Amino acid sequence: MAQKKIAVLGPGSWGTALSQVLNDNQHDVRIWGNNPEQIAELNEKHTNSLYFDDIILDHKIKAYDDLSLALKDVDAVLFVVPTSVTRLVAKQVADTLDHKVIIMHASKGLEQGTHERISTILEEEIPETLRSEIVVVSGPSHAEETIVRDLTLITAASKNHETAKYVQALFSNDYFRLYTNDDVIGVETAAALKNVIAVGAGALHGLGFGDNAKAAIITRGLAEITRLGVAMGANPMTYIGLSGVGDLIVTGTSIHSRNWRAGDALGRGEKIEDIQKNMGMVIEGVSTTKVAYELSKMLDIDMPIVSAIYSVIYEGADIKDSIIQLMRREGRPENEYIVEIKGKN
Amino acid sequence: MAQKKIAVLGPGSWGTALSQVLNDNQHDVRIWGNNPEQIAELNEKHTNSLYFDDIILDHKIKAYDDLSLALKDVDAVLFVVPTSVTRLVAKQVADTLDHKVIIMHASKGLEQGTHERISTILEEEIPETLRSEIVVVSGPSHAEETIVRDLTLITAASKNHETAKYVQALFSNDYFRLYTNDDVIGVETAAALKNVIAVGAGALHGLGFGDNAKAAIITRGLAEITRLGVAMGANPMTYIGLSGVGDLIVTGTSIHSRNWRAGDALGRGEKIEDIQKNMGMVIEGVSTTKVAYELSKMLDIDMPIVSAIYSVIYEGADIKDSIIQLMRREGRPENEYIVEIKGKN
Repeated sequence: MAQKKIAVLGPGSWGTALSQVLNDNQHDVRIWGNNPEQIAELNEKHTNSLYFDDIILDHKIKAYDDLSLALKDVDAVLFVVPTSVTRLVAKQVADTLDHKVIIMHASKGLEQGTHERISTILEEEIPETLRSEIVVVSGPSHAEETIVRDLTLITAASKNHETAKYVQALFSNDYFRLYTNDDVIGVETAAALKNVIAVGAGALHGLGFGDNAKAAIITRGLAEITRLGVAMGANPMTYIGLSGVGDLIVTGTSIHSRNWRAGDALGRGEKIEDIQKNMGMVIEGVSTTKVAYELSKMLDIDMPIVSAIYSVIYEGADIKDSIIQLMRREGRPENEYIVEIKGKN
Repeated sequence: MAQKKIAVLGPGSWGTALSQVLNDNQHDVRIWGNNPEQIAELNEKHTNSLYFDDIILDHKIKAYDDLSLALKDVDAVLFVVPTSVTRLVAKQVADTLDHKVIIMHASKGLEQGTHERISTILEEEIPETLRSEIVVVSGPSHAEETIVRDLTLITAASKNHETAKYVQALFSNDYFRLYTNDDVIGVETAAALKNVIAVGAGALHGLGFGDNAKAAIITRGLAEITRLGVAMGANPMTYIGLSGVGDLIVTGTSIHSRNWRAGDALGRGEKIEDIQKNMGMVIEGVSTTKVAYELSKMLDIDMPIVSAIYSVIYEGADIKDSIIQLMRREGRPENEYIVEIKGKN
């Protein structure tokens, strides 16, 4: 693929790792952020010490705090900002762009209040004249591993298959591999809700439960996510893929995940306010729990694991009682849906 | 549920743990095995020191090396023997039983040569006059955790829903929970093939890869299992359940699993003969790799991960080359099947 100019919005850990992947593929990468000190550090020292202690980035990667400079003549724009500021940044992008670009995002969450997916926010705020169909980049990916070029497989999802393939080509190299997917709703709901289940798996660990119980909460959590996603229009098979099962495995079994660590601390009896204060970083699973709980009520979907985590975080319920009650619910038929295979992709 | 008499065939680690679950539920449990020393130890010391160092079983659990004594007047028989001897033991049970019983099994494998599932072997060898529809008990369950009564959720699968519910009631208590499933093919293929993928995940660990790569091989391995299972008649949604995703999480991410440990040793450069000798226990994943590979050829199913592991174990291929080639394959559309939801269970 010929060199492209790409703006990466959000110099967090994942934005930085993806910038390096794109730079490794010979693209012209501009990182945009709103913290002048961090931008200066990226340009002068080529480090991002907030997230990575000893990684020196290629000098070709440039950083900007001026959005119009970052977006000048770009072919593609990658959003990797926290869910809570996606709409704000999208409005700024719409005001600044003067030509049509490929729009991608790699964030995992649902918007507070509106309960919207991230691609819907981007569709609403950026006029069609300025953008492609949105492409969601999602899957099992600790930034700490991708930044050292350890092997990572993720998915590129879009309503437009050609645009998904373009993004696949943009990112793919020897250590970073992409599959394509046409189910944007499935990929985005999987990505957002796995953070809630990771909080639950961490909580079981903090309470002293073993691997059997953790596998159980991940599997039954996935059943809940599938139930909600299908009601929103997703393909149930998406949840068995990289953005579903794959991401749940890395997030739900690893101390690298801040959602898992927040759950672990809850399980050990810490208060959510203290956990958030100590962690300093955004814990998407905590805010997504609220959105998911509200969605389950709005759509009348049974989500006992999400409800239990909600009651612990937002209503002060006792975590041990809540989890034990949850895991002792009556076992039901596992396969909720009668599916028929109509063809192959 | 009223007290039942249950014969547990096979005093391995899982057979012992399940015997204790049934005894905790006030059933009359008889363990059968063919090692007289082990049987004597179980009856005299109430221990099974081959598997558990410091567990003392309830004195009510009796052990026998005489099958006719173990089967006398039983309501149900649970097979927990290695796949390689299932047919032999089933023939002996058919010759010994003098009344109709519930037949359950908790083994994970496919038969060498015939490529048959375990329930098919049991159906063939035990006449219908002597048995119920077979019930498969499967899911994420380290015996080491169940034996100390840590929380475990598994599935009971049978063509007959009432028989599955009977088995669900037999085993269920505060720490051991069962869901039901009507997809015996899906549950048995998931249970058998996850051992192959666990070998692959262990190998990636032994080669020094990180969590992203391990989540990737588990997810793409699950896609292969689903592909084979669907060709054999399974419901694709079964693989997202406890016997699929759930069991892959505990087997594919845990050093407790001997399949994972065998893969880890392969990744570190050990020879398969030495690994099998050192381990002393049956490594189902190694023999299942051969059956799965043969099945994929017979049914013309693309199974690149299974093929790579087969070539390493059975053809002396270099593990590093095989794994790297595998993980660098061209990424495709993730959702292979176009499915339609026809209704709810």
